[in-house]
Amino acid sequence: MLIVKRFAMILLLAGGVSAVAAQEATWIWYPGDFDIWLSNKMQNRRTERGSFFPPFWKLDNHYILINFHKTFNLTAPEDVSVYVEGEYNVKLDTKLLPGKPSQVTLPAGKHVLDMKVFCQDRVPAIYLKGKTLVTDTSWKVTFEDKEWIDATGKVSDQSGTVWLPAASGGFNNPLQPPSAFRLQVTPASAVRKEKLSQGEVLDFGKETFGFIKIHGLKGTGGLSLYYGESREEAMATESCETLDRLELQNAPARDSVLPLSKAFRYVQVNAAAGVSYDSVSMLYEYSTVQEKGNFRCSDEEINRIYDVAKYTLHLNTREFFIDGIKRDRWVWSGDAYQSYLMNYYLYFDEPTVKRTLLAQRGKDPVSSHINTIMDYTFYWFMGIYDYYRYTGDSSFIKQCYPRMQSLMEYCLGRRNKDGLMEGLSGDWIFIDWADGLSKQGEVSFEQLLFCRSLETMALCAEIANDAKHKDTYNQLAADVKTKLFNWYWNTEKQALVHSRINGQPTDHVTRYANMFAIFFNYLNNDQKQGVKKQVLLNNNVPAITTPYMRFYELEALCALGEQNYVLQEMKNYWGGMLKLGATSFWEEYNPAKKGAEHYAMYGRPFGKSLCHAWGASPIYLLGKYYLGVTPVTAGYDTYTITPVLGGLQWMEGDVPVPGGNIHVYCSAKEIKVQSATGTGKLLLNSKTKPVVSNGTAVLKSGQQYEVTIEKNKAYRITYTAL
Amino acid sequence: MLIVKRFAMILLLAGGVSAVAAQEATWIWYPGDFDIWLSNKMQNRRTERGSFFPPFWKLDNHYILINFHKTFNLTAPEDVSVYVEGEYNVKLDTKLLPGKPSQVTLPAGKHVLDMKVFCQDRVPAIYLKGKTLVTDTSWKVTFEDKEWIDATGKVSDQSGTVWLPAASGGFNNPLQPPSAFRLQVTPASAVRKEKLSQGEVLDFGKETFGFIKIHGLKGTGGLSLYYGESREEAMATESCETLDRLELQNAPARDSVLPLSKAFRYVQVNAAAGVSYDSVSMLYEYSTVQEKGNFRCSDEEINRIYDVAKYTLHLNTREFFIDGIKRDRWVWSGDAYQSYLMNYYLYFDEPTVKRTLLAQRGKDPVSSHINTIMDYTFYWFMGIYDYYRYTGDSSFIKQCYPRMQSLMEYCLGRRNKDGLMEGLSGDWIFIDWADGLSKQGEVSFEQLLFCRSLETMALCAEIANDAKHKDTYNQLAADVKTKLFNWYWNTEKQALVHSRINGQPTDHVTRYANMFAIFFNYLNNDQKQGVKKQVLLNNNVPAITTPYMRFYELEALCALGEQNYVLQEMKNYWGGMLKLGATSFWEEYNPAKKGAEHYAMYGRPFGKSLCHAWGASPIYLLGKYYLGVTPVTAGYDTYTITPVLGGLQWMEGDVPVPGGNIHVYCSAKEIKVQSATGTGKLLLNSKTKPVVSNGTAVLKSGQQYEVTIEKNKAYRITYTAL
Repeated sequence: MLIVKRFAMILLLAGGVSAVAAQEATWIWYPGDFDIWLSNKMQNRRTERGSFFPPFWKLDNHYILINFHKTFNLTAPEDVSVYVEGEYNVKLDTKLLPGKPSQVTLPAGKHVLDMKVFCQDRVPAIYLKGKTLVTDTSWKVTFEDKEWIDATGKVSDQSGTVWLPAASGGFNNPLQPPSAFRLQVTPASAVRKEKLSQGEVLDFGKETFGFIKIHGLKGTGGLSLYYGESREEAMATESCETLDRLELQNAPARDSVLPLSKAFRYVQVNAAAGVSYDSVSMLYEYSTVQEKGNFRCSDEEINRIYDVAKYTLHLNTREFFIDGIKRDRWVWSGDAYQSYLMNYYLYFDEPTVKRTLLAQRGKDPVSSHINTIMDYTFYWFMGIYDYYRYTGDSSFIKQCYPRMQSLMEYCLGRRNKDGLMEGLSGDWIFIDWADGLSKQGEVSFEQLLFCRSLETMALCAEIANDAKHKDTYNQLAADVKTKLFNWYWNTEKQALVHSRINGQPTDHVTRYANMFAIFFNYLNNDQKQGVKKQVLLNNNVPAITTPYMRFYELEALCALGEQNYVLQEMKNYWGGMLKLGATSFWEEYNPAKKGAEHYAMYGRPFGKSLCHAWGASPIYLLGKYYLGVTPVTAGYDTYTITPVLGGLQWMEGDVPVPGGNIHVYCSAKEIKVQSATGTGKLLLNSKTKPVVSNGTAVLKSGQQYEVTIEKNKAYRITYTAL
Repeated sequence: MLIVKRFAMILLLAGGVSAVAAQEATWIWYPGDFDIWLSNKMQNRRTERGSFFPPFWKLDNHYILINFHKTFNLTAPEDVSVYVEGEYNVKLDTKLLPGKPSQVTLPAGKHVLDMKVFCQDRVPAIYLKGKTLVTDTSWKVTFEDKEWIDATGKVSDQSGTVWLPAASGGFNNPLQPPSAFRLQVTPASAVRKEKLSQGEVLDFGKETFGFIKIHGLKGTGGLSLYYGESREEAMATESCETLDRLELQNAPARDSVLPLSKAFRYVQVNAAAGVSYDSVSMLYEYSTVQEKGNFRCSDEEINRIYDVAKYTLHLNTREFFIDGIKRDRWVWSGDAYQSYLMNYYLYFDEPTVKRTLLAQRGKDPVSSHINTIMDYTFYWFMGIYDYYRYTGDSSFIKQCYPRMQSLMEYCLGRRNKDGLMEGLSGDWIFIDWADGLSKQGEVSFEQLLFCRSLETMALCAEIANDAKHKDTYNQLAADVKTKLFNWYWNTEKQALVHSRINGQPTDHVTRYANMFAIFFNYLNNDQKQGVKKQVLLNNNVPAITTPYMRFYELEALCALGEQNYVLQEMKNYWGGMLKLGATSFWEEYNPAKKGAEHYAMYGRPFGKSLCHAWGASPIYLLGKYYLGVTPVTAGYDTYTITPVLGGLQWMEGDVPVPGGNIHVYCSAKEIKVQSATGTGKLLLNSKTKPVVSNGTAVLKSGQQYEVTIEKNKAYRITYTAL
């Protein structure tokens, strides 16, 4: 059924196609529109017990009428094949060509080609392929060309058209337009079958995702599928989160693929008396992102944690970086923000980051925070900041900048009389899932993220050559930061307090703002040590129970040099899930709970997601704070490598960077490094001056040495661990 | 072919339908969305010689995900049938019902029903029908419900959801959802056939609109149709504006209806040797708006002008009020504005006015003037003003007010340093089609319309209970008006000059601003007389050659009491077109031209539209300035009737008003009046005191008398004309 549908998609395209190599030509569209359209499809695939369950925020739309524009200069006339998604016309030098040509002959010399495409249900897109003229991102696009004519037929010569470079996304086959995009699938089988008094339960051996396929299905009557991330869930026909029901009427035997993908490890299959089938398998559906990073070390439990984290992230890396595969499958900004960071240490896949950022942002006007959550708006800005830091892709920043500005305008318009961000009607202050966490008044955590977002605006204003607003944003950021420390820093508690209510700081301390303040580098050294002792390592401050915020808590501790402590925490926390049989990491984990209690959330016995992207943070922590690779200037033009074993005997891994990897091996005696890009500084502590195979170690302070790492050279450093 | 398509539309609907009377239930959707969606379909139907020809402004989109919400209170449980356009769910008291129910049983008592509908290609819409619970405009809708849940499953209790009343549009049949909307068609035949050496020319006897139907079409090869508003155009295969080409391949004989409607009087049919057919007819396509107004008088030429004007307006009254049926078929704001005014004197059809206003306005953000034309933005505001004046429908004003505000914000943001509207890049200053008309600098005409638009904003701010902005808009309007008279009024010329350039008024006088200033009542009596003599009746001021601006020119003269002169102008100008064989009125008419010269425009031999809505203005002039019926307060709560024969011996007619008509008969001796609404003042001049059958005449001044007209009473007044 699914397969047939995909095939049909391809056949639906306009005919008359010849074999085309199409190496350079690619489908193009208006920037951001495919991302929004695809996210609408994706986010409306959620079901809850068979019922449609769409998002609760505004879904934006692609522009339905687009002008594609290209000035070309040919040395000889050229035949060009034309493929289009939508109703269209072709203009050569502003003159309409007859009808809807599937092939046009372009004259030699300098000319202008324009195509207008209208498409309501898909994104207007074109693919042109001639000997030299092809569609690519050198084409310009607009959603309003404003090209009126006067009574004599003369085209306006003072149009205010805003042209943008066209977007593309690797759709290089004229027969596979953007609307036909599907993730890959591959067949997979259950590893175990368990007969029930009625029906059977299939166990696919681990958390997985895809389309159930029922082979040789026939007969008359109902067939039900109950999906479970746990066996308990698959058995709970009245409370499992997802299910499918088919109704057959004299169906002849055939293989049926369920139309909607699901997350599961177990599936209970329950057929009515009149219905039979041969067997049940699945089509595993996955993104083809490439694993570029890796990590291995002397601790096998950490290695298993790393592998399950990788699998968890891969399952949640789909058309977009989503939150979890069982339930929402939505593009949540706070969740995706963590996936971006993990991505930089595993796939370094820029397209999925850009697609997710564009989908979250949508279009103007802004009528709510991203996903309705104030913090999630700020994570969106921070995602842009990090994207630039890791990739150095300034063209994407320039493309996003107008939408960044209007979103920031929305935020600035919602400040209270003290210039702080306080929840207004319709604003969800999320922070974390934590019992009794106060969202009242002006929460320090939100001001901190607001400040970082303003700093991001200033950075991007500079990239977008908007010097005037750069200054404005810098001043606004400085103002918020001043207020943060004047109003929230409690010297006695050595912490930022949780909130102000009615203009007065509370004396309640939580971890959130304090841990972010550390890796944002907003604290001086005394403050850092105070926070470490009085907040992070203080059991009287409420503990964090989600991997989501454990991500930042452990990052803060790593930033303070507590890798040994963090390694043990990883083993306890992620290792704890593994000991309970987890094959992917969870939305929430509280070691105090027992048995099926672990599966409950949102007031539902199986409400919790057992495969949540934010559970995969060891990928990031191990890459950034153990292998110790981090960019200093955008796109790894310069970077540092600060290996920290944290109690391991040895570790080895790759961190992907633009154009290749940075490879690091580290034991207590020896470090090996090779990098494919930029200029790095290897920072290490040694009792004696390290010996460098291919360079020299320079003493920086006390026992810290620095080795300059040049591109594509192998370094071997022997040293004496402290 | 067309018929088949329509039928298929209906069959595509969700099945399981029982016979339903459905008197009260109606399809509902988010306000404005159907109008925008339908206008996208309509405006993308334009072709030029067979090529797709879409608009050059931004096309907006409907919201693709909508929540429909209803609190109900049933005395007994009730079965409700559910019909939906799109993917959907149903929630009862915030709990999801299983799957996609086509029927739900609602419990007795007070409960809440929610439905979420996602639909990309059509407008999300629902139709529910129970014994008492039905979909209607008492339902609420939103495009973002912001109803998040916390970790315990509790729904947010501080949502900032903006709920609006749902919109509906007379779709009361569950099997005919909004997306299936089509205008009516009826078969029609040519009145004459002319054999050509190759092919034939059919003459349908007058301008018409619809789908050509070819009966018994069969064979192999091409068949071409060349459409002509004139015989010359249908014969000009190389330059006619619209055509169709079919290609047949061993087609068995069948009746084929062309998929796109066209405007024509003549059609040349040209079949290849291998193609044959039995005959050619058409399906005339039309709006079912009802004629409520009428006019008859002692001058048969005026009667013919009135009838052809009616036919012209009817052809251009379609899904929307469009500009002309042959070429653009777009929703142009300046053109539609005149149709609104004519509509109030012929159909009084509110839905087509509202649909057109909503379609033109589209959605935020505003990125250009309406249709890219500055004056057309202002006509949009004026259209709102008049809609309220004629209908008194304040709920529509309230619905539109936020979109009015953002459009006015756009205008205010584009004022120059002197606070005036000057064309910026991308702004088309249209005014009129007139050779050599200057659009440079700050054109007085635009300031005048800007001022009226600000007055409209103040009026609507009051209706929308926005007292603060009412004052702001009034101040802004007063400021523009002051500048208009301080800077543009030339005492010597007794006129507003055409423009200022570089801050200096020119001494060039055109008719535009001056004639609008008269019926906007911006001039004092001396200024009015000055303008009349020095501008309107001055042959040295460039003449107007479009019925578009003749509309306002003649209105201004009527407002000055020049009905005798205007009657002669009507006979000359519109009568002139009739003498040339016009069966509908034209986009432009210059009596100085000869033969086929009349058909040329935009540099093309048949570029001119011979059926243009703005050609139908006699409907308005005769109703408003001869029968003399005009509302004083909104919705004809109070009104005046000032009959002016203007040289006619007698006239009689009806002007539609809310709830009925106002009937007026007038000769030099006798006036008869009956009104279905409000309280009127009949104003008449008489040498002697008029005798009133059913009331009394009160002397107001000199020889002017006033008779109060009460609802549903017949009055007969005898008087002595001056």
